[in-house]
Amino acid sequence: MADATPASLAARVRDGEIRFHELEEHADADTAAAARRRLVAETADADVDALGEYAFDAADAHGSNIENMVGAVQVPMGVAGPVAVDGGALSGERYLPMATTEGALVASINRGCSVVNDAGGATARVTKSGMTRAPVFRVADVAEAEALVSWVRDNEETLREAAESTTSHGELLEVTPYVVGNNVYLRFRYDTKDAMGMNMVTIATREACDAIEDATDASLVALSGNLCSDKKPAAINAVEGRGRSVSADVEIPREVVEERLHTTPEAIAEINTRKNLVGSAKAGGLGFNAHVANAVAAMFLATGQDEAQVVEGANAITTAEATPDGDLYCSVSLASLEVGTVGGGTKLPTQAAGLDILGVRGGGDPAGSNGDALAEAIAVGALAGELSLLAALGSRHLSSAHADLGR
Amino acid sequence: MADATPASLAARVRDGEIRFHELEEHADADTAAAARRRLVAETADADVDALGEYAFDAADAHGSNIENMVGAVQVPMGVAGPVAVDGGALSGERYLPMATTEGALVASINRGCSVVNDAGGATARVTKSGMTRAPVFRVADVAEAEALVSWVRDNEETLREAAESTTSHGELLEVTPYVVGNNVYLRFRYDTKDAMGMNMVTIATREACDAIEDATDASLVALSGNLCSDKKPAAINAVEGRGRSVSADVEIPREVVEERLHTTPEAIAEINTRKNLVGSAKAGGLGFNAHVANAVAAMFLATGQDEAQVVEGANAITTAEATPDGDLYCSVSLASLEVGTVGGGTKLPTQAAGLDILGVRGGGDPAGSNGDALAEAIAVGALAGELSLLAALGSRHLSSAHADLGR
Amino acid sequence: MADATPASLAARVRDGEIRFHELEEHADADTAAAARRRLVAETADADVDALGEYAFDAADAHGSNIENMVGAVQVPMGVAGPVAVDGGALSGERYLPMATTEGALVASINRGCSVVNDAGGATARVTKSGMTRAPVFRVADVAEAEALVSWVRDNEETLREAAESTTSHGELLEVTPYVVGNNVYLRFRYDTKDAMGMNMVTIATREACDAIEDATDASLVALSGNLCSDKKPAAINAVEGRGRSVSADVEIPREVVEERLHTTPEAIAEINTRKNLVGSAKAGGLGFNAHVANAVAAMFLATGQDEAQVVEGANAITTAEATPDGDLYCSVSLASLEVGTVGGGTKLPTQAAGLDILGVRGGGDPAGSNGDALAEAIAVGALAGELSLLAALGSRHLSSAHADLGR
Amino acid sequence: MADATPASLAARVRDGEIRFHELEEHADADTAAAARRRLVAETADADVDALGEYAFDAADAHGSNIENMVGAVQVPMGVAGPVAVDGGALSGERYLPMATTEGALVASINRGCSVVNDAGGATARVTKSGMTRAPVFRVADVAEAEALVSWVRDNEETLREAAESTTSHGELLEVTPYVVGNNVYLRFRYDTKDAMGMNMVTIATREACDAIEDATDASLVALSGNLCSDKKPAAINAVEGRGRSVSADVEIPREVVEERLHTTPEAIAEINTRKNLVGSAKAGGLGFNAHVANAVAAMFLATGQDEAQVVEGANAITTAEATPDGDLYCSVSLASLEVGTVGGGTKLPTQAAGLDILGVRGGGDPAGSNGDALAEAIAVGALAGELSLLAALGSRHLSSAHADLGR
Repeated sequence: MADATPASLAARVRDGEIRFHELEEHADADTAAAARRRLVAETADADVDALGEYAFDAADAHGSNIENMVGAVQVPMGVAGPVAVDGGALSGERYLPMATTEGALVASINRGCSVVNDAGGATARVTKSGMTRAPVFRVADVAEAEALVSWVRDNEETLREAAESTTSHGELLEVTPYVVGNNVYLRFRYDTKDAMGMNMVTIATREACDAIEDATDASLVALSGNLCSDKKPAAINAVEGRGRSVSADVEIPREVVEERLHTTPEAIAEINTRKNLVGSAKAGGLGFNAHVANAVAAMFLATGQDEAQVVEGANAITTAEATPDGDLYCSVSLASLEVGTVGGGTKLPTQAAGLDILGVRGGGDPAGSNGDALAEAIAVGALAGELSLLAALGSRHLSSAHADLGR
Repeated sequence: MADATPASLAARVRDGEIRFHELEEHADADTAAAARRRLVAETADADVDALGEYAFDAADAHGSNIENMVGAVQVPMGVAGPVAVDGGALSGERYLPMATTEGALVASINRGCSVVNDAGGATARVTKSGMTRAPVFRVADVAEAEALVSWVRDNEETLREAAESTTSHGELLEVTPYVVGNNVYLRFRYDTKDAMGMNMVTIATREACDAIEDATDASLVALSGNLCSDKKPAAINAVEGRGRSVSADVEIPREVVEERLHTTPEAIAEINTRKNLVGSAKAGGLGFNAHVANAVAAMFLATGQDEAQVVEGANAITTAEATPDGDLYCSVSLASLEVGTVGGGTKLPTQAAGLDILGVRGGGDPAGSNGDALAEAIAVGALAGELSLLAALGSRHLSSAHADLGR
Repeated sequence: MADATPASLAARVRDGEIRFHELEEHADADTAAAARRRLVAETADADVDALGEYAFDAADAHGSNIENMVGAVQVPMGVAGPVAVDGGALSGERYLPMATTEGALVASINRGCSVVNDAGGATARVTKSGMTRAPVFRVADVAEAEALVSWVRDNEETLREAAESTTSHGELLEVTPYVVGNNVYLRFRYDTKDAMGMNMVTIATREACDAIEDATDASLVALSGNLCSDKKPAAINAVEGRGRSVSADVEIPREVVEERLHTTPEAIAEINTRKNLVGSAKAGGLGFNAHVANAVAAMFLATGQDEAQVVEGANAITTAEATPDGDLYCSVSLASLEVGTVGGGTKLPTQAAGLDILGVRGGGDPAGSNGDALAEAIAVGALAGELSLLAALGSRHLSSAHADLGR
Repeated sequence: MADATPASLAARVRDGEIRFHELEEHADADTAAAARRRLVAETADADVDALGEYAFDAADAHGSNIENMVGAVQVPMGVAGPVAVDGGALSGERYLPMATTEGALVASINRGCSVVNDAGGATARVTKSGMTRAPVFRVADVAEAEALVSWVRDNEETLREAAESTTSHGELLEVTPYVVGNNVYLRFRYDTKDAMGMNMVTIATREACDAIEDATDASLVALSGNLCSDKKPAAINAVEGRGRSVSADVEIPREVVEERLHTTPEAIAEINTRKNLVGSAKAGGLGFNAHVANAVAAMFLATGQDEAQVVEGANAITTAEATPDGDLYCSVSLASLEVGTVGGGTKLPTQAAGLDILGVRGGGDPAGSNGDALAEAIAVGALAGELSLLAALGSRHLSSAHADLGR
């Protein structure tokens, strides 16, 4: 492998000597990526050198994070805050790291953080937790479906032993059966501690499925039967939660609302009702908020989370009300925020730095506390974003803000 | 500004002389970002140097893409393909650029592309197009609501003139009214050509709202009343579309299914029905697919799209059936894929390279064709991913694939 | 047929001479029903004589409303009101007829009507109208799907002519295409005047489908492809409407709220937000109301509507707010209320009397106005029910009210 | 009261001596209803005598089923079947009683029953059971919300004792908490045996709420916070069930499908997929079936159930597939069928006869078995209806069937 250059490797691919996706077997990962850039550039007749200016070791990413690597995309990162948080797992002041290309977003959330601080900080809590995997089994008929449901209810301990035999960290919390004709879906829910946990629960559930197939006539169709539900908008997640169910709120004195946000608690409550509640209701929505996904996506990207899980992260409800004392109460509740501080993209240098900014990198003490803290941080970021946008809408500055600051 | 160093700037922020978010007024953007890294590192007691190893000009990103910039996150990018596409706007063989940290994802889609090629390539078409913005107005009562609805139906030309006065590219396609008590929501739909268009339609709709307020007693509450619906899971997008509604499909000869995917058309059709259709139905879902969001998120990130719009991108339905001839027909239809090839994150160097790999950077000829082509490319990527995962589920290799390749 | 008695007919069925469902060919409809009661009573070993005490002519119902008739079920009917309505089609004071077996329901709505009257009456308006039918076609692939969509957009006049050739009353308003892979759904929307219209639009759409199959390669799979969507909970109806979209509202002076409902506008607004808006949001709901279905079901039953369409009738949003003057504004908006004043069950004597109580029996002048008026009456009944229940919940009297009045 | 006549009573109401809704205090219930008919007829200027020809004792209905009674509506009742059922609680052959005004409905279901019989009968099972009530509490903030959730998890026994103190039959099965900002919803689920149970669970939950308010700072806002969710379309019911979750299925030999239904298993499976699965998916639906609500509504009406709960009864999924042997497997699963055989409308003579036809009137032995049996009967009726309509659609006879038999 010592002699391999990008040019020579590319030539061998062109000649059919080696295959495009096997370049790492013939060179180090960085050289392999460089060779692919050559080949891709030729095919596309374009300059893709920018992709090669990454600053991590390709060998660390290859296989664990990426295949057919050509380089890296670079996304600008900013910070909002610092913002004061009183959380169940996260306490104190934190900068919130956000990677995005949407102009005005960080500025908007930053303004929200500032107002949260003026109100004495935000409160945050994880109220439910658990990563799910829901295999689907085929049975003979509805009689056998009912029998399988009964078997599962009577043999949860067997399933727990099988599932937990595959993991030193994960704990099976419950198994909930759902029947549709000759299909039985079993939604396994696990405590996966500081890991987002999809891989862990997939492996554990597979073992449990083997136990079911051994003991019953049911036949496994798919390890995921879509009642998990991973990376799809689904009411089951909005209702029952997946990953962390986390809420953040703040009570803002009236004068802060008036002086800093140039509006009133009543106006913000009214806008929230007409837009986030009634508007989303009329839209047939699962997301009753203004733009929670913006904070989720930007903080996911900054901390090495799975960007496709922004989908479930958007299952959030924002509330706003004028208190009896005339102040503003505002909250955001994210039903299904799937986060981890170990594994996946969290080990890459820039993403690890993102986690470090929050002080939540790696396994927490106790286990799971870093995952909880990350969830609380994102909830506070989302809260700040909601406050800022609701205020901006109230002041009718949305489009001009975009015009001034925007993309 | 010539003398400013990161250290001196950081000191001045600490001393309260200048504000954290105004550093760019006192130094060039790169130095400002470096100063912020110092301040953030101190607060977090962490090393965040990795964030500074970006390879674009901070001045290009500041303001248009990011505020309070500290640097950039780097996400590994791979390519799947090349895959043959017969699209309405995209034709020929293309590598599909994908940025992700989820191990095994690119490999999986790559396998799908290979099978698509063995079948002669995928077909793709945009079947509906239009970016929406839906302001909410407050009226006196339901009588006035009905009157406003009538006024809008009678004055669509007035609204068109107002809206289109703000843009040289955008065209107002329709305005659909929705009434809930004393709230009237007007969903404006525009052709925004190669731009994703949120900013364009926000500005245009604001002008139209002014015209409405001038002519009627209605009072604008918010430029977005959540029937748009942007970055929230909402049936209105899954049903009516937003951005591009795009479908891709492929018919795969039986022997290819058997030899390459190690399963049968009937098995894949059955899994698709039990998992993607019935399972998602039972989950209360808007996404009837296996993992379309993975392709959307990875290709969005690789091409400078708005990651928060992965939410709507997941509104997709996958179908699979054995044909009368015993082959496999498989399709994926994304109802609301919001993409652009100009503006936003598309100008950043690595993202521009991602677009170049597809050959769709900048404005298309005719206008809108690059946006269509990007949508078709993502649909084909999603199709390849669905095929690969359905086959893997059929072969019961999901968890072991992850174990081998994954996190 | 002169000699046929219930006993002799029953004997001939037992002997296999004639078939159970063909009794009307051998006797008048009343005698046939009596014979069936004998046979059913024997099989069930039960007394079912009560079913025979109906007071309409069985011959009028047989075939047009029922088959295998054994008699009739009798449901108690009460009236609420009279209530003052300022509607687009219904004006003045009306008793609202309601058939139900749920104790306390009519009393509750009656209290609501009384409060509405104290406030000067309710306002009501139909804001959208049109009955839908959505056939599904199979096409070769997504390219052909896109071509069919284009064909439909270019040939709406052809479809209109075909559809309207089958009806003297109905008018085709629009055809909206939806694509999912090789399936194309076309949602036809018609003005069916005073008829609920399902039968009319089914026949008309079938003719249009023939025109499509004649002109294209598309193949009709089913006249209803479930995007209609009839008798299923579906966002498409909640968003786009089906039948009548109708709203009713009232502004109630503060003193009336306090003295008559023993609560405050603020309390009712808060309960509505926490229960009907946020609670329904968290439930993954399409119905953001307290019990609109109660009024819909009871008035449907009293006026000969299709009880299965109560499903769509429940797609309603209730709003409540304290006005700047401290009064209570309350509204209810039913997105998809499918009603008719001709055809179906409206001709039966007791149902006709129910329509007469409202003054909306038969075809209206202009055509459609009776259907509109019926929709407005139901909306006002629903409004009264919401007001009463919200007030009762505020006063925490729900269960005790049931205990006093209820089942 | 002896001397009161309808005429004299009506005159006294006109004179303001007695109130319209208090007539039962001045005369027997039949005379009171007659007086109201006079008054309503005057107001409406219409003949409403038909409403007076009811055949039950008004005193039995007044208060427990109706207020402001004016008479009764009469709905034609037919029977389908008898159909052979192998259920968990219902076994043998049963006529299915159905009250409807929709022509062709009973005939259609009857054809389905006939085919089910030719296939050896249907299988049915209740797979989950429990009536729910979900109060909403207001708390100070999300920290207190999390604390309340913990308290509930730690004190379920306290809640059980409180709830069960109010009922001799009901059993509290579980309490599930949901948090949205400063709102905590607690979904109580009960076994209510043969009662539909809404009243029982409302009273029991109220007692449990008192215990919560005594022990915590939470404040009850409403006994129903809409996560129950009663009489509204809501995913929580479609996913988690309410009342009975019940499935029915049948395997029909190929030759029966071909000879009796004039189609093939493959055709029915295809139609079911394109219409009931993909079509409903695209509609944003919670009901993946053809017309289950028809059977539910007609059997609810025939057996004294609450017609407004047809809404939840429509949360059903129909599946159809060709088996490896070439036969047809078809199932229907109703997630949330709320039925009872005691209380409510079940005591009225005609409704009691409807229950008697099924052999399920009154309390079952064991308790709950009659409720289960009724649910299974309705599921079989729904299955027969689905089969018949799918076959009719396959044969393209929908509109002509209506034209021949229909309204």
